[in-house]
Amino acid sequence: MTGSEAADWWATGICRMEPGVVELRGIPVQDLIGTTGLVATVWLLTRGSLPDPAEAALLEAALVAAVDHGPQAPSIAIARMAVTCGVGLNNAIASGVNVLGDVHGGAGEQCVALLNEIVEAEASGRSLTDAVAAAIAGYRYVPGFGHRFHPVDPRRDPLLALVDQAVADGVVAGRHARAARAVESALNAGRATPVPMNIDGATAVIYAELGFPPPLARGLFVLSRSVGILAHAWEESNQGRRNKGPIPPSILPTYRP
Amino acid sequence: MTGSEAADWWATGICRMEPGVVELRGIPVQDLIGTTGLVATVWLLTRGSLPDPAEAALLEAALVAAVDHGPQAPSIAIARMAVTCGVGLNNAIASGVNVLGDVHGGAGEQCVALLNEIVEAEASGRSLTDAVAAAIAGYRYVPGFGHRFHPVDPRRDPLLALVDQAVADGVVAGRHARAARAVESALNAGRATPVPMNIDGATAVIYAELGFPPPLARGLFVLSRSVGILAHAWEESNQGRRNKGPIPPSILPTYRP
Amino acid sequence: MTGSEAADWWATGICRMEPGVVELRGIPVQDLIGTTGLVATVWLLTRGSLPDPAEAALLEAALVAAVDHGPQAPSIAIARMAVTCGVGLNNAIASGVNVLGDVHGGAGEQCVALLNEIVEAEASGRSLTDAVAAAIAGYRYVPGFGHRFHPVDPRRDPLLALVDQAVADGVVAGRHARAARAVESALNAGRATPVPMNIDGATAVIYAELGFPPPLARGLFVLSRSVGILAHAWEESNQGRRNKGPIPPSILPTYRP
Amino acid sequence: MTGSEAADWWATGICRMEPGVVELRGIPVQDLIGTTGLVATVWLLTRGSLPDPAEAALLEAALVAAVDHGPQAPSIAIARMAVTCGVGLNNAIASGVNVLGDVHGGAGEQCVALLNEIVEAEASGRSLTDAVAAAIAGYRYVPGFGHRFHPVDPRRDPLLALVDQAVADGVVAGRHARAARAVESALNAGRATPVPMNIDGATAVIYAELGFPPPLARGLFVLSRSVGILAHAWEESNQGRRNKGPIPPSILPTYRP
Repeated sequence: MTGSEAADWWATGICRMEPGVVELRGIPVQDLIGTTGLVATVWLLTRGSLPDPAEAALLEAALVAAVDHGPQAPSIAIARMAVTCGVGLNNAIASGVNVLGDVHGGAGEQCVALLNEIVEAEASGRSLTDAVAAAIAGYRYVPGFGHRFHPVDPRRDPLLALVDQAVADGVVAGRHARAARAVESALNAGRATPVPMNIDGATAVIYAELGFPPPLARGLFVLSRSVGILAHAWEESNQGRRNKGPIPPSILPTYRP
Repeated sequence: MTGSEAADWWATGICRMEPGVVELRGIPVQDLIGTTGLVATVWLLTRGSLPDPAEAALLEAALVAAVDHGPQAPSIAIARMAVTCGVGLNNAIASGVNVLGDVHGGAGEQCVALLNEIVEAEASGRSLTDAVAAAIAGYRYVPGFGHRFHPVDPRRDPLLALVDQAVADGVVAGRHARAARAVESALNAGRATPVPMNIDGATAVIYAELGFPPPLARGLFVLSRSVGILAHAWEESNQGRRNKGPIPPSILPTYRP
Repeated sequence: MTGSEAADWWATGICRMEPGVVELRGIPVQDLIGTTGLVATVWLLTRGSLPDPAEAALLEAALVAAVDHGPQAPSIAIARMAVTCGVGLNNAIASGVNVLGDVHGGAGEQCVALLNEIVEAEASGRSLTDAVAAAIAGYRYVPGFGHRFHPVDPRRDPLLALVDQAVADGVVAGRHARAARAVESALNAGRATPVPMNIDGATAVIYAELGFPPPLARGLFVLSRSVGILAHAWEESNQGRRNKGPIPPSILPTYRP
Repeated sequence: MTGSEAADWWATGICRMEPGVVELRGIPVQDLIGTTGLVATVWLLTRGSLPDPAEAALLEAALVAAVDHGPQAPSIAIARMAVTCGVGLNNAIASGVNVLGDVHGGAGEQCVALLNEIVEAEASGRSLTDAVAAAIAGYRYVPGFGHRFHPVDPRRDPLLALVDQAVADGVVAGRHARAARAVESALNAGRATPVPMNIDGATAVIYAELGFPPPLARGLFVLSRSVGILAHAWEESNQGRRNKGPIPPSILPTYRP
């Protein structure tokens, strides 16, 4: 029967929909409204069940930490320029979110994979030192470490402190945090200027400790950074520029044939 | 001095950035991490200061309510198809978010404007009945009311109940809620099948009560629906289809020259 | 029968598809390959039949004229930044094309509508002078006229010369060109610095003369500018920058709370 | 001097811009208008100089061949749904173009790389048979070959015939065409149902013969398919649906927890 074929083509376990009914992962939406936080709902929809409050709190800290890094970030600049071109905030956000790719927003995803690799190698009997050395061998830039701007990323320490507390409270196991610190030590050994863990690394520790698979690390960063993208697009739209270019109109791009 | 000209071109009040420093609306990011929720941070970045907890809770309920409405929504279907085409989750989310336009995601924005119009007319001495009649006169579809699918939207009552509680607690004034209910009554007068307030209307009441300007209603909906878009894209990516079209490959689109 | 319902939901007159068969607007694709130009194919798909060669040539000139205007254009800058973020050329083009909105790319669409309005007013008996005065009365910026950068847009004269030739050859009627020149005269009357027709205006004349409805003017501009967007994204990707922001990293955006 | 630093940050060799001047790759734009085709302009901007007419004609055939493949293609379906959501044609095109990723639009890019690899292996002394066997060894789906829908892709033969003619005319060398046919033979050896070269393969032959690097193959496909995306979005916008989902509203997606 082709009707059910079309229905099955769009089968989902996330949302059950009937006239008068909206259920998310089996929970009527009206039972979530007013009882469940947005971050717990993110977890529910992506993972299939609700988190413990302590898990949600740790995730929430990571999502808050990455909301914005100013207009030097391409995603932010793009959204600000977009909104001056006569499109809606949804379009401006889309043009910005779209560039959270392997280089701009992908470090978290890559770092979760890296930490998983180290933790699994350790679980299979390798020493942490060896596991780290093997995992970082192939990289020119190890994802989640180093920053072109901050000598120390101000978001690193508070995030790791929350992870340490969650380990102490038995919320997470702490193996990915240990792996990340071991990577940091290995990278800094013998260097005058350190290559400290950055925001992508610190949030990757949290995502990995909480069991999010690597691609969702990128997805979670998208949700987080969308907040800053929206705020910047909105601020720009109130400044009244039209067709804002990347540099003031008085400065012409150099022609270099 | 052209260097400062370029710096000024990108002036912002949202984020202060110096080596080792990230401040959001004047608050060091490390003071937000672990103390401030994601929804409060949305408020901070878009409005300039932190909300009261009761305000944040009301906003959070609205954001949770709208996260998903299943694959029949174009934004969700688009993101699911996108992720089967060999692009990242960021790209899939962008293609989906991009369509939250005047028709799909704009009803909330339009409804906030409508409620503001009614509240302002009332404030200038008009009766609520007259203000409502004038405000809805020009519409074929009044934004925020009626649903092609749900006879009663299951998200309406719990959201309005939270607004009523917030009015009782002195958190919000309740004028926009009153206006919205008056619109509903006017639309339903003499009709056999009611045109009830829908999710866009119920969340618009909250956004308007909390003082968000109309365009931010769309922006907030984007943040909310991005959660469902991410979850659906992720679910689809785990089903392994490649180049998923809108209907099964066995069904060919009708050719109608 | 629901299978045909799903098939009908996607009914189209553009493309007939069966195993081994691809027909575009009733023409087997293999009959187009090698015989029909890309611009004629644009016409075929959007209009339903093939253009005369002289019509296609006029359209081609308009499409060539608008391919690029350098990195100061937000669409170009966005695509260049996007490609440094680790996304594909398709994603970079999408982020750029997305901002060709009412302000950046919409002037052509608005100008076609304006010219149509004047031509129709004239056809109904009004004088050209009156029709122009009425049509431009409401605008702060008349779409298609004036340029913040070029005192005279170098693309104006060659495009209008081609239109004049096409009028002489009986290819188009010339009424929209006459209307556009009348708008130009009206805008410049009594001004020291002229407000000349710009690229959007000159291409709008061509689109309108050729009978394209206003929204397709924007669509055609998207096709044209996509060429420049692709070229710039490609050039940028060969320069090796990562996460390119809008200004050099040495210049920090001004913080202005 | 920071002004020139900002100017240099946006240096380009594609477009020189001064008041009254627009030069593309050193050619005043007014010299291109009316003399140079759109496809030759694509070549000029991406490659740096104008093609011979025979080269442009071959490229044009490839671009025409890929403009559309109906609403079953995710890019087309997405643009059609997008335009019903209250966004502009530019936004609808962007959401569609965005998904021309590694799986949907990337086969051409991958196939050019594959053909280059074979041609280079042959040039370094390997037999064609060995070079092909080595090149295709790792693939589950060899990019550019096989089609889930067409037993024989109707666009294959006319495109290859044009390549053969171009080889006979000395326009291109023919090595990539030979490599592609050798891949086809290798894939079909001993199979009952052949795995013929598809549109991505046939256009990849042309792009590779003309010297386009692999990523530009994807870029060229984006330009080509944008034509169909525009046409479909436009057709859909004239059908008047609002918030078009992927299947008719009467068919509910299956809930499968």
